[in-house]
Amino acid sequence: MSEVAQTLEGWYALHDFRSIDWTAWEAADESLRQVAMDELYSYMKEWQALEDTQTGSTAFYSVIGQKADLVFMHLRETLEELNTIETAFNKSIFAQFTYPAYSYVSVVELSNYMAPPGTDPMQNPDIMARLKPILPKWNHICFYPMNKRREGNDNWYMLGMDERRTMMRSHGMIGRQYAGKVKQIITGSVGFDNWEWGVTLFAEDPLQFKKLVYEMRFDEVSARYGDFGDFYVGNLLTEEKLGQLLK
Amino acid sequence: MSEVAQTLEGWYALHDFRSIDWTAWEAADESLRQVAMDELYSYMKEWQALEDTQTGSTAFYSVIGQKADLVFMHLRETLEELNTIETAFNKSIFAQFTYPAYSYVSVVELSNYMAPPGTDPMQNPDIMARLKPILPKWNHICFYPMNKRREGNDNWYMLGMDERRTMMRSHGMIGRQYAGKVKQIITGSVGFDNWEWGVTLFAEDPLQFKKLVYEMRFDEVSARYGDFGDFYVGNLLTEEKLGQLLK
Amino acid sequence: MSEVAQTLEGWYALHDFRSIDWTAWEAADESLRQVAMDELYSYMKEWQALEDTQTGSTAFYSVIGQKADLVFMHLRETLEELNTIETAFNKSIFAQFTYPAYSYVSVVELSNYMAPPGTDPMQNPDIMARLKPILPKWNHICFYPMNKRREGNDNWYMLGMDERRTMMRSHGMIGRQYAGKVKQIITGSVGFDNWEWGVTLFAEDPLQFKKLVYEMRFDEVSARYGDFGDFYVGNLLTEEKLGQLLK
Amino acid sequence: MSEVAQTLEGWYALHDFRSIDWTAWEAADESLRQVAMDELYSYMKEWQALEDTQTGSTAFYSVIGQKADLVFMHLRETLEELNTIETAFNKSIFAQFTYPAYSYVSVVELSNYMAPPGTDPMQNPDIMARLKPILPKWNHICFYPMNKRREGNDNWYMLGMDERRTMMRSHGMIGRQYAGKVKQIITGSVGFDNWEWGVTLFAEDPLQFKKLVYEMRFDEVSARYGDFGDFYVGNLLTEEKLGQLLK
Amino acid sequence: MSEVAQTLEGWYALHDFRSIDWTAWEAADESLRQVAMDELYSYMKEWQALEDTQTGSTAFYSVIGQKADLVFMHLRETLEELNTIETAFNKSIFAQFTYPAYSYVSVVELSNYMAPPGTDPMQNPDIMARLKPILPKWNHICFYPMNKRREGNDNWYMLGMDERRTMMRSHGMIGRQYAGKVKQIITGSVGFDNWEWGVTLFAEDPLQFKKLVYEMRFDEVSARYGDFGDFYVGNLLTEEKLGQLLK
Repeated sequence: MSEVAQTLEGWYALHDFRSIDWTAWEAADESLRQVAMDELYSYMKEWQALEDTQTGSTAFYSVIGQKADLVFMHLRETLEELNTIETAFNKSIFAQFTYPAYSYVSVVELSNYMAPPGTDPMQNPDIMARLKPILPKWNHICFYPMNKRREGNDNWYMLGMDERRTMMRSHGMIGRQYAGKVKQIITGSVGFDNWEWGVTLFAEDPLQFKKLVYEMRFDEVSARYGDFGDFYVGNLLTEEKLGQLLK
Repeated sequence: MSEVAQTLEGWYALHDFRSIDWTAWEAADESLRQVAMDELYSYMKEWQALEDTQTGSTAFYSVIGQKADLVFMHLRETLEELNTIETAFNKSIFAQFTYPAYSYVSVVELSNYMAPPGTDPMQNPDIMARLKPILPKWNHICFYPMNKRREGNDNWYMLGMDERRTMMRSHGMIGRQYAGKVKQIITGSVGFDNWEWGVTLFAEDPLQFKKLVYEMRFDEVSARYGDFGDFYVGNLLTEEKLGQLLK
Repeated sequence: MSEVAQTLEGWYALHDFRSIDWTAWEAADESLRQVAMDELYSYMKEWQALEDTQTGSTAFYSVIGQKADLVFMHLRETLEELNTIETAFNKSIFAQFTYPAYSYVSVVELSNYMAPPGTDPMQNPDIMARLKPILPKWNHICFYPMNKRREGNDNWYMLGMDERRTMMRSHGMIGRQYAGKVKQIITGSVGFDNWEWGVTLFAEDPLQFKKLVYEMRFDEVSARYGDFGDFYVGNLLTEEKLGQLLK
Repeated sequence: MSEVAQTLEGWYALHDFRSIDWTAWEAADESLRQVAMDELYSYMKEWQALEDTQTGSTAFYSVIGQKADLVFMHLRETLEELNTIETAFNKSIFAQFTYPAYSYVSVVELSNYMAPPGTDPMQNPDIMARLKPILPKWNHICFYPMNKRREGNDNWYMLGMDERRTMMRSHGMIGRQYAGKVKQIITGSVGFDNWEWGVTLFAEDPLQFKKLVYEMRFDEVSARYGDFGDFYVGNLLTEEKLGQLLK
Repeated sequence: MSEVAQTLEGWYALHDFRSIDWTAWEAADESLRQVAMDELYSYMKEWQALEDTQTGSTAFYSVIGQKADLVFMHLRETLEELNTIETAFNKSIFAQFTYPAYSYVSVVELSNYMAPPGTDPMQNPDIMARLKPILPKWNHICFYPMNKRREGNDNWYMLGMDERRTMMRSHGMIGRQYAGKVKQIITGSVGFDNWEWGVTLFAEDPLQFKKLVYEMRFDEVSARYGDFGDFYVGNLLTEEKLGQLLK
């Protein structure tokens, strides 16, 4: 057996993609729509309060194209809290004008491939901040799930620890070049959902998503060992933009 | 032909994943909802009675994310009993507020790879308890189906018995390290459903699902020979939690 | 070009899997439900009459899990008759409470790999009885479609006739060990449906499905050359059991 | 780059598979159903008139199994005409009782692998008749789309022209043995639909579909280089048979 | 790591495929349909105005077959503008008679494989015109998404820059032979949607789509390294043709 890569875990994550039933929404009473929107605004306030107390974080974006209209990315301490949020939303007035489009269950993860030996990462405040991150309010979001490939000669899990560490380091170097342009949250989903990881990126300029992911694709760790699921890209929803979307 | 791995079989299993039609549920009369919930509570009592008499076992969890809202995992003596449970649920009031999300038909299985030679496992009370297990009421459930791979040079069924036994032993060792943290029920589904096995895990701490499945992935038997279906993760539903979910 | 395996064909087969719309069924008038059930009972009588005159055969089972609720397996002389049955069912009252779940079109087939040279199989009454079989009324059914693999070095259709014959013989040996426990009907679907063959098994004890299919999986012809579709398993429906299911 | 196989193109083709909403059809007024059927009969007359003037051809069959109930195979001069037919059908009364099941867009194609050198095929009346064929009214139809494989060592498009020509010739030989029993129309769909070719077969005896396709599967061009989509099989619809189907 | 291919990006693209709910459309009031069509006509005028000011471009085509009825291809400066267009359409009257069929999010891209060294492509007016193109109003459109393959020995991203450049050059040569017959817009979607590129072709004669794509398939860059998604083909919609389609 190959040496197992150690990981650190932080907040649990639920990416909740929803589509709007526009015909029903347009047909609804103005007053009902206002109630539904007020509910959403009040959720947004609750999410802000959680961030203020460092007890969770939520990102809220519109999604471009037909895969979904909205995405909520919730980070919370426990799976129970995620389930509670999901159920509360399902019972809301606004939810009656939406249908599920896609979801992803995972947990914020830092891999230990690059940890300096002899240190305890859980004592490191930087690392703790990365395990329980307040999500940025940047203009754009990108989400995709991924696996490490296990096919014929391209089998990540049969490689030795050193080989994997070297490749991950080179991979990390690319990411570091985008510091300040792209913020990346890796969530692990082995045992929780259909892929092994979820990747969530934030940027002010969405071209940076393309440049980063494309550059990484030429890196052996992606070129030979990366399998990717569906990609979603979205625009930040503020109270004002949400109002425009639904007005 | 490669020597066939012997297996022992116990109770039949039906994993029944359901989604709730929240709009219909919210629109229903309070009194109708109460009838529906009372029906569910009385099912829960029946399941408890079966466990008390060791004639079957049922686990009942909520599911996180959009794949489903609920999962019933039923263990019973016969396929006929599973069909009867399924039909009874389909005719219930509550079922009218749900739609099918996924199901899995299998049978509790112990593989004989590790049996001491010259013993009759069916005379072993420990083994019988594992073939007809009372499911734990731990906080979390994880379910996924899987195949042993048959692709090019990675063909499990073309390996010799010894090679398979050695790999399964190493695999079992990993599982044993999680004793007390993760309870694992393997069900075989060759001839019954689309994958060869179903894996159901129970844990108080859901991170243990991730750690166990991830560690196993570096083991050759998973790395080279494991193909995995969808993963579902859920939270225990007690009467009280069910009440909260549906209130 | 590799020598083509000769086949003999008998009755055409339609496997018709249906799901019940339980909400609509529960909501229907008792009298309408009775009309629908009487229709089904009268179909069952017609199918019996066909079997009595050896002009066709139909098996009728409930299906376990969410893939379907019912399966009709019809064997008839022509594709036109199968289409007529299907249309008649579609126009029935009961059909309005069902929706299509899966279907499979094929023809009963015997492969000639094992025929003694110099004999005319069509003059053999045993063979004729296997080409136009009256389906057993055993307690359980199992159905799955399959292909012979054509991938890289595992390409069945590039093997020589002798190699294929040797493997099929070993495969047949396994089947013969289950004589009396499992009855197997092979139907060919090349040119008719999405897989090359359908396999329908009948047994009194459903564990025999698992044991047979699992044992065969270690045989080279399955291990290297078998690709399998969805598996369905069901329980026999008599008039009485149908009454219980729908009451 | 490998030498490109030359092709000749004739009429454009639309295979339009439809399912009938039987519950709505049964619930409709007898008079509305008559209007719908009269519309269909008048389409059938129009299609006959096109064939009489050699300006197009349409085949109309019922489909066996749940994949669809009906298939219209339209051959016309232009894509615009195909779109017009499709839209006219979508606006018809009968269409309101159907829903789309599958469609395929392609163009009748002859490959030039076997053309005698130094001749102009477009001056050949036989070839022109094959490019703009009046579809036979034989009892059965079979349709499936296919690709030439491009996987590892089995990459059709990396073979030399001579190798491809030799294999196609052997393939054509098999087809010729079925002359009079199976009529084959090849339509090319590169750039038009999801597969590279559509194959439409007509026969009086549907077993000939199975025998032809199965025999070809042992031929290297199919065994190593053929990837196949879904298979559909159907029965000829005359006015009388359509009346029976819908009565 | 292999040297990364440089790319230039221009306008963002949304391909929005829609199906018409013909039954609802036929059932609607003549006056409501007129309002819906007037809305569409006014969108067409807005799109023309954008093209007049070089601030965006939209192509509008009907789609042949059941995959969709209509496609809007929008090119705009930002993802926000694409989202705004999408939302405006979703709120329109006409949208209530349609449902989503497929969409694709990407950005106009020029690859730098063939750039003369030492020049700044962004100063080149020809290149700028290709990055922000006014879409042709040719009779036919063809769209398909694609990946460069990463499988076993056929792994594009593990090739050296020179090898990739040589292959892309040969590929470009084929495209150039179709100058005047086929106009090609390449959009990159790494990080934005499920495939790496979208290819949109325009032609007066749709056979040119088939000839171009087929010829390219024999080129090593497609034969070994191209993986293709669904293909869509359509006819230009002018105001007049839209009127005919919907009348």
